[in-house]
Amino acid sequence: MLGSIYTDDHEMFRESVREFVRRQIEPHEEKFRENRLIDRDVWLAAGRQGLLGLGVPESYGGADAGDYRFNAVLGAELAAAGMAVASSFGIHFDVVAPYLVELGTEEQRERWLPKFATGEFITAIGMTEPGGGSDLAALKTGAVRDGDDWIVNGSKTFITNGIQADLVVVAAQTDPAKKARGITLFVLEEGMPGFTRGRKLDKVGQPEADTAELFFDDVRVPDANRLGEVGHGFVAMMERLPQERIGSAVSNIAHAAAVLAETVQYAKDRKAFGQQIGAFQSNKFVLAELTTKVELTQCYVDQGVLAHSKGELTAVDAAKIKWWSAQVQNEVLDACVQLHGGYGYMREYRVARAWMDARVTKIWAGSNEIMKEIIGRDLGL
Amino acid sequence: MLGSIYTDDHEMFRESVREFVRRQIEPHEEKFRENRLIDRDVWLAAGRQGLLGLGVPESYGGADAGDYRFNAVLGAELAAAGMAVASSFGIHFDVVAPYLVELGTEEQRERWLPKFATGEFITAIGMTEPGGGSDLAALKTGAVRDGDDWIVNGSKTFITNGIQADLVVVAAQTDPAKKARGITLFVLEEGMPGFTRGRKLDKVGQPEADTAELFFDDVRVPDANRLGEVGHGFVAMMERLPQERIGSAVSNIAHAAAVLAETVQYAKDRKAFGQQIGAFQSNKFVLAELTTKVELTQCYVDQGVLAHSKGELTAVDAAKIKWWSAQVQNEVLDACVQLHGGYGYMREYRVARAWMDARVTKIWAGSNEIMKEIIGRDLGL
Amino acid sequence: MLGSIYTDDHEMFRESVREFVRRQIEPHEEKFRENRLIDRDVWLAAGRQGLLGLGVPESYGGADAGDYRFNAVLGAELAAAGMAVASSFGIHFDVVAPYLVELGTEEQRERWLPKFATGEFITAIGMTEPGGGSDLAALKTGAVRDGDDWIVNGSKTFITNGIQADLVVVAAQTDPAKKARGITLFVLEEGMPGFTRGRKLDKVGQPEADTAELFFDDVRVPDANRLGEVGHGFVAMMERLPQERIGSAVSNIAHAAAVLAETVQYAKDRKAFGQQIGAFQSNKFVLAELTTKVELTQCYVDQGVLAHSKGELTAVDAAKIKWWSAQVQNEVLDACVQLHGGYGYMREYRVARAWMDARVTKIWAGSNEIMKEIIGRDLGL
Amino acid sequence: MLGSIYTDDHEMFRESVREFVRRQIEPHEEKFRENRLIDRDVWLAAGRQGLLGLGVPESYGGADAGDYRFNAVLGAELAAAGMAVASSFGIHFDVVAPYLVELGTEEQRERWLPKFATGEFITAIGMTEPGGGSDLAALKTGAVRDGDDWIVNGSKTFITNGIQADLVVVAAQTDPAKKARGITLFVLEEGMPGFTRGRKLDKVGQPEADTAELFFDDVRVPDANRLGEVGHGFVAMMERLPQERIGSAVSNIAHAAAVLAETVQYAKDRKAFGQQIGAFQSNKFVLAELTTKVELTQCYVDQGVLAHSKGELTAVDAAKIKWWSAQVQNEVLDACVQLHGGYGYMREYRVARAWMDARVTKIWAGSNEIMKEIIGRDLGL
Repeated sequence: MLGSIYTDDHEMFRESVREFVRRQIEPHEEKFRENRLIDRDVWLAAGRQGLLGLGVPESYGGADAGDYRFNAVLGAELAAAGMAVASSFGIHFDVVAPYLVELGTEEQRERWLPKFATGEFITAIGMTEPGGGSDLAALKTGAVRDGDDWIVNGSKTFITNGIQADLVVVAAQTDPAKKARGITLFVLEEGMPGFTRGRKLDKVGQPEADTAELFFDDVRVPDANRLGEVGHGFVAMMERLPQERIGSAVSNIAHAAAVLAETVQYAKDRKAFGQQIGAFQSNKFVLAELTTKVELTQCYVDQGVLAHSKGELTAVDAAKIKWWSAQVQNEVLDACVQLHGGYGYMREYRVARAWMDARVTKIWAGSNEIMKEIIGRDLGL
Repeated sequence: MLGSIYTDDHEMFRESVREFVRRQIEPHEEKFRENRLIDRDVWLAAGRQGLLGLGVPESYGGADAGDYRFNAVLGAELAAAGMAVASSFGIHFDVVAPYLVELGTEEQRERWLPKFATGEFITAIGMTEPGGGSDLAALKTGAVRDGDDWIVNGSKTFITNGIQADLVVVAAQTDPAKKARGITLFVLEEGMPGFTRGRKLDKVGQPEADTAELFFDDVRVPDANRLGEVGHGFVAMMERLPQERIGSAVSNIAHAAAVLAETVQYAKDRKAFGQQIGAFQSNKFVLAELTTKVELTQCYVDQGVLAHSKGELTAVDAAKIKWWSAQVQNEVLDACVQLHGGYGYMREYRVARAWMDARVTKIWAGSNEIMKEIIGRDLGL
Repeated sequence: MLGSIYTDDHEMFRESVREFVRRQIEPHEEKFRENRLIDRDVWLAAGRQGLLGLGVPESYGGADAGDYRFNAVLGAELAAAGMAVASSFGIHFDVVAPYLVELGTEEQRERWLPKFATGEFITAIGMTEPGGGSDLAALKTGAVRDGDDWIVNGSKTFITNGIQADLVVVAAQTDPAKKARGITLFVLEEGMPGFTRGRKLDKVGQPEADTAELFFDDVRVPDANRLGEVGHGFVAMMERLPQERIGSAVSNIAHAAAVLAETVQYAKDRKAFGQQIGAFQSNKFVLAELTTKVELTQCYVDQGVLAHSKGELTAVDAAKIKWWSAQVQNEVLDACVQLHGGYGYMREYRVARAWMDARVTKIWAGSNEIMKEIIGRDLGL
Repeated sequence: MLGSIYTDDHEMFRESVREFVRRQIEPHEEKFRENRLIDRDVWLAAGRQGLLGLGVPESYGGADAGDYRFNAVLGAELAAAGMAVASSFGIHFDVVAPYLVELGTEEQRERWLPKFATGEFITAIGMTEPGGGSDLAALKTGAVRDGDDWIVNGSKTFITNGIQADLVVVAAQTDPAKKARGITLFVLEEGMPGFTRGRKLDKVGQPEADTAELFFDDVRVPDANRLGEVGHGFVAMMERLPQERIGSAVSNIAHAAAVLAETVQYAKDRKAFGQQIGAFQSNKFVLAELTTKVELTQCYVDQGVLAHSKGELTAVDAAKIKWWSAQVQNEVLDACVQLHGGYGYMREYRVARAWMDARVTKIWAGSNEIMKEIIGRDLGL
């Protein structure tokens, strides 16, 4: 492996995250999968360890790490434990945090951030709508001003932490004539009349992540829960997508690397036709290729993380890194399944679950096709 | 599509299988998945319609179709309904049938075939062993002669119909010094003391197929249940693998074709960014490529079926067709998932289940790697 | 290999073509490459052997084979000798023949076909224009009626047999307002004032094929040289593209198969690290994959040929077969180069020349992208 | 693009190399190709500008850059001009330099380095032998001690600068019983009796690079021309392969990036079917993918260069970077050819030549297969 972008501080933090994973995640994974969500206890434990408030100022109880590499360490170590763990927590500490911290008023920050950091408030973000896919500008969820409130109607789908979330950042159309420029963000809270959750979606993988549809039926949302300026929602989302995408890439490659490491070990331990299966040249070359791909992708993601920690990551670079890491992750996992033979098809094997867990990364947070559209436009095409 | 290998007789039979699928399979698919097996009622219905005894002589209650294309029609139509349906029934009518019909003594045929054809006897075949994978010559299950009986010890895994099977063809080592030439086949029956089933394996896909481990603990098997000559088991299996593999290929491509057809329709129906998603040129080209691959693979499989119906399919051609069809099936399904966007990751969508169901086809019945080994040897390498 | 579509008659004809290749082509290949054209002597020899007039009625000196499989045999055997040989002769006997035979008047057929069949008239077809690529409807070459003649102006490029051709079928716009429906075909003859040839194009491969630009500067073409109805040129070309494309596919796969056979032999003969290089499992698997791909593509092309010999090949199937065969040919040759190591990069090795020769097949006769567009449209996208 | 590893000093040097390319290379490229070598004048000009002695101590007339990034800048800019330019000069300044500088005695350094730095001595290195490929340990060229001299017999092939080289570092077996540990390096000089050059090899691409076979027929080489200790040749080569491989990777990706940039421009300039071809979504996505691949590979190569400039690049990382960069380069160029349509097949277009030039990079300096073998062994397989 080539040189690291991480310092001793990051590595010490990494060790503490690993300890968290060993104590709070690994012993309960089966339960998470059976319950199809991550217990709130674990959120609170993460909060106690300061993991959830990495991006939250100290005055609101956060760690105010001030260096995106800490986010990356956390995301990578959670993903090494499992994609669903990484995505559930990631939506909170990596995706939602900047919305609340950067767009929130002082009053909102005081109201939400302390419990955000402790894990008492689990958060989610509602962009995607049924039938809407990646076309964010075509939102059907609408909010109409009514005195000091807004009346929100519509629905969202594929919402990670959808069932458990106490706070949900929701994008709604407040001025349809303006299209993208008419989108405004609101924070909906658990318990608001008319705000209901649909069934927990039955996904191909990541059963631990509670993913759901959300329904808004004349939900009265006070203007005090409006996040940012009216009509600035689309820009606010666009500005924060690079962080969501580099964070996604960090998880993708950490997850692939962890499973590949296990598979290399499996290829040494498992014998067939009288020798370790990894010694068959075809398998050896496959593992050599996968290792190369994982390491070069790690290198690419790392440089993206470094750029982002300096505030220099462009939306286009984030798009490149995101689609590529998802592509490699899926290729690697498919090959790892194959190397496990019949056992690779058994859910009790981690490689099998990992393969299912990973399939969504080419789709969520902007599909690979959307990423290529962004890149192509940047080329002037 | 290029010309068909099927005659009107085959097409009439195809229509009757489709009717069977519409009436007996489709309405119950969710139940099959929940129960994690296909109800015995459905087996009996298949038997009544003459589907199970395609390869069984009329004198034993079979249809004695005498043309492998009928098997192919049945396999294809079942696979279009679902891989698990195809594999559960396929093990019976396509894989086990030739063992019993061709290797059975008159007494055995009379004892087993009539109920085989009616579905009263569900069958399975036990080749693979825990840790053994594709290395059939390294069997650990052993049978020792004891008077008129054999005492069988060992275990098998990944056995389709493993829980339900009334009869299981089991390969056991009867003369370890002779290695492959010491393997003998036996028919174990439900109820034999010491013959137990393990848990139903929790697979990535195909929940409808009951796949299990089998355990043999001093199972006393009468010599009258020996299938074929002592020491001829390996050859018997090798001789029948081409049929298992072409049958597998038939299912693979029929399954991919069915899901692709649905996906083309989805790409017409679903709109994004103001147009049908299939009209985006990148998607259009992907669908053009998938269509080409499915059709050329169908063409290749068809010619293999035709060769096999004339008794001319070689083991090497079967290996080529098998790995290729599995590869294409998996590529096609992965792309179809992607074309469905987030919905492609939801189990309620058939494409999602199909993607999980298909993953095993590159592994079972001889992994793609084993197929390439066979082909490479045939090239003199 | 699976069953053949060819009968004994075709195989006898194949043997005679092979004899022609052995006598007339192989001894002179280096000279052809140095001269950058195939000697007219060889054309005449081909004519004497009846190869050029396969599609020409007997009354005009042709063989009137009446079965496209003879064309396919000829194309395949020429391609096994070299792509350029196949393309130079193929433009004549396979592409141009149907234009003259089917569209020509009795007078034209008498005037042109006898010498077409003997090789005294070498022919070419001029569709593509500089900057025009696959967009046939956007022709700039124009023909304006002037009394009994037409005045043709414009240019064509990438014209196989461009230097040597005695007769060139040229598509020209005779009614620009009608776009595609204004295109008319003309036969331009060597010696017509204003009809000149540009330089012989310096291609990546296929130096033996004389490929050139053609220039038309107020060429006066008698109406008696108009081929088919005024304005029917586009339809005439569209109707004949399937034959050009299936013919192209036949060459593609025959060429790849020939080089792969040599490469398998090379992998047996060449030693490294103490063993034959084909015995290294990675190489063995590569060769197994290439063999599978060549055979399945052969099977697909064969079924296309059979369909065309019955008049049933659709434009869409021809498009599928054409792009796929070109793709496989190029993949196979690239892998064959790699298996030759450094020698694969030396022009004296056939594999190196074959790799360069083949690159154009993904581009000419409608690029792979155009093929996918055709297929996508057929899907209703 | 993500952050650069280069400082202002490197960028100033880059500008001077670009100036050299504009003045000394670009105007003469056609001549180089016709002559099938790079004029000695250009070598001398490079020497005058200090480019050849980057790795040579100042006391011997070199620049003693002391930072591998200068080598990388030079290699990249030469490769952007053409692979053959990069490889001819690269063998000299990047590959041979460390042998002479690090292994040479004081006397040898004084004798060779000053003219090495001026370009009066052009150098080459002779490792590969006919039929030997990447198996360096199996050398057949032998040297037998005879008084103060060695008598060298054997041959080498695929030697870049083989015709022009004044000095050739040659690996010879001096103690066959010791195999790899019996290999010793010698510097053979132009004019030594018995040292002859074979024909200039006719390669697929890179005609400007004079690549040749070398023959040694009882060449009497004084022991003063022995480079390094007897028997230490294999180790000396192994130690220097990482630099050769990272240097190769630098060229690979710079070359691909240059051609891709031209192709993006071409896709904007060229129109078909009424729009710029790059605007077709399929082309746009292809260009987006290629851009991503080039940039991530650039990032990976850069980090390898940085590691090497700190003396930390391992042989395994060099192997990973080398094969991957060659793979990407070839994929990119093949796609760029396709985007050029028919013009991509014409040698007058740079993309066509680049495609031919690049094919060897998956083979030379250790084929991709050898790289995977190295990586696989490092994994313990």
